[in-house]
Amino acid sequence: MKSDEPNISLSQLGEFGLIDRIRNQVADSRSVAVGIGDDCAATILPAGELLLTSKDLLIEDVHFRRDWTDMYHLGRKSAAVNLSDIAAMGGKATHLYLGVGLPKTLTAAEIDQFTSGFLDEANAAGATLCGGDTCRSNGSLLISVTVHGSILPEQVLRRDGAKQGDLIYVSGTIGDSALALAQLQRGDTPSTDLAQRHHSPTPRLALGQAIAKNNLATAMIDVSDGIFSDLGHILEQSQLGAQIIQNQVPLSESAQLHLNSHPNDAEIALRGGEDYELLFCAPATNNDKIKQLAAELKIPLTQIGICLPASQGLTLVTPAGQTQSFQSTGFNHFR
Amino acid sequence: MKSDEPNISLSQLGEFGLIDRIRNQVADSRSVAVGIGDDCAATILPAGELLLTSKDLLIEDVHFRRDWTDMYHLGRKSAAVNLSDIAAMGGKATHLYLGVGLPKTLTAAEIDQFTSGFLDEANAAGATLCGGDTCRSNGSLLISVTVHGSILPEQVLRRDGAKQGDLIYVSGTIGDSALALAQLQRGDTPSTDLAQRHHSPTPRLALGQAIAKNNLATAMIDVSDGIFSDLGHILEQSQLGAQIIQNQVPLSESAQLHLNSHPNDAEIALRGGEDYELLFCAPATNNDKIKQLAAELKIPLTQIGICLPASQGLTLVTPAGQTQSFQSTGFNHFR
Repeated sequence: MKSDEPNISLSQLGEFGLIDRIRNQVADSRSVAVGIGDDCAATILPAGELLLTSKDLLIEDVHFRRDWTDMYHLGRKSAAVNLSDIAAMGGKATHLYLGVGLPKTLTAAEIDQFTSGFLDEANAAGATLCGGDTCRSNGSLLISVTVHGSILPEQVLRRDGAKQGDLIYVSGTIGDSALALAQLQRGDTPSTDLAQRHHSPTPRLALGQAIAKNNLATAMIDVSDGIFSDLGHILEQSQLGAQIIQNQVPLSESAQLHLNSHPNDAEIALRGGEDYELLFCAPATNNDKIKQLAAELKIPLTQIGICLPASQGLTLVTPAGQTQSFQSTGFNHFR
Repeated sequence: MKSDEPNISLSQLGEFGLIDRIRNQVADSRSVAVGIGDDCAATILPAGELLLTSKDLLIEDVHFRRDWTDMYHLGRKSAAVNLSDIAAMGGKATHLYLGVGLPKTLTAAEIDQFTSGFLDEANAAGATLCGGDTCRSNGSLLISVTVHGSILPEQVLRRDGAKQGDLIYVSGTIGDSALALAQLQRGDTPSTDLAQRHHSPTPRLALGQAIAKNNLATAMIDVSDGIFSDLGHILEQSQLGAQIIQNQVPLSESAQLHLNSHPNDAEIALRGGEDYELLFCAPATNNDKIKQLAAELKIPLTQIGICLPASQGLTLVTPAGQTQSFQSTGFNHFR
């Protein structure tokens, strides 16, 4: 139940007013035995399935800037980046938990927009918001999301299962989000398409589940820190090396348009993060099935490289045909 | 594996160095199929049990001050306040997830102390750390914990089950934490006992489980915001009123000593929060069993009031025998 007074302040609304306001926007779910408003939520996990859990913090001026995004899309993205972790395991998303540290200056209307975006993204994923925490923040807006999913034990797609000779695939296109961010950081306005990829990424849940159910991949991860950094986790945990062919890394038309006029941004497109596409390794014998799945789901699945022995490290073949040896820890959050 | 250089900085350690550092301190658990270091943790829930989930944010200078506590006890408290929510449902604690937003000025040694406290508290509760998130914070230290527990469906203790005529009990003693906090806020030094209750509260897990298993209570909550505010949630959700007898609210010897010299602090002891004791309602016919349980567990369980019809509201009988009508929303986090 939204207030008739959208500019009502947080202190007027109060903590429990805010919780009621959120609870009233959440539909009932049969998998929720106890929902918002008790000490814990109590939920029902499908029999025989594993519980998948991930959590992500989003901190103002570290992960987002409020002058670059609206509250609705910030809500969507807060849910999406968490849901993407469920996709990366091959799981179904089931429940979400939302913690917020709110600056006093936020209005109830802004919180409504945030909640509305968060719930739209949750609903699109079939996940129910069933708990969280609300408190004030003296400074930045703080968002802490926990996501639950479930999966049959034999379907779990970990990072440590890739094998030498496996082909490396990514879904969708790479670099859109990083190009948008780079433009925002320069004070430029990114194209609508690129901005959309940055502010409102799509978690690849249906794709992740299809890959898991059909046993197509040996290892999978979502691209949050950049393809080299994220592939690096798979290689490290699978004790492998790999070679990536830069010309095969799929770019969107919008990214290609941008790179035509800003060729120096090619590195940003290649190495930037936050695309929330899936990167996975699969034996070459699965290539036909993977192409078929791409056609069925209408999601591009592109082979960008191959897994090699660990001794070969991670290398990139550039468009000019040179081989670059790659030492990447990707995005170091503490730099 | 702790570094030989305790003053190594966060940026030297790096995000993945930090994650490795934490992972190496965590023992394996059979209930964890995939632990720290993948997109999600994958855990096993006991068959037929509900999953309990709660999450709490702890924000520097909102929930704690680093000049008032050491990092070890901050770690303990961060786990404890979350575990207390599992206790309040009557559940077993199973898994913990830790998200941290870290100021660059923190040293690896400080993070080790925090982690050590967090893991000591987790181990005491039988819960395994199996995931989380690490990122930098531009300002305050931010801590976001998610806790999992499990419980048989028929044992869940909600807030909405209290009945008219039920007696109201609290465990342990009330007010110690609030008295310590009030002294810290005034620039005074609280006694060791009171400070300990504030900096390192004990989640009442064994007690909560015993109450749930023996079907002793109709509703339960942990005392985080103060007995009136927290009882208020039970009354609101159970559609009841209640009367509390101030003289029956159990005070520790340390609290009593403090109040002897600071009688004006009686209100603080009565209304302050963060004791993390359990408050529960139970039919009078269970009183003998509750006394027996208190003796067995060596935890005081004290009757402090009675549930009444909603029309009577929430009232307090003062030591002078006066009845105060009580309008409390307790601690409003946005004031």
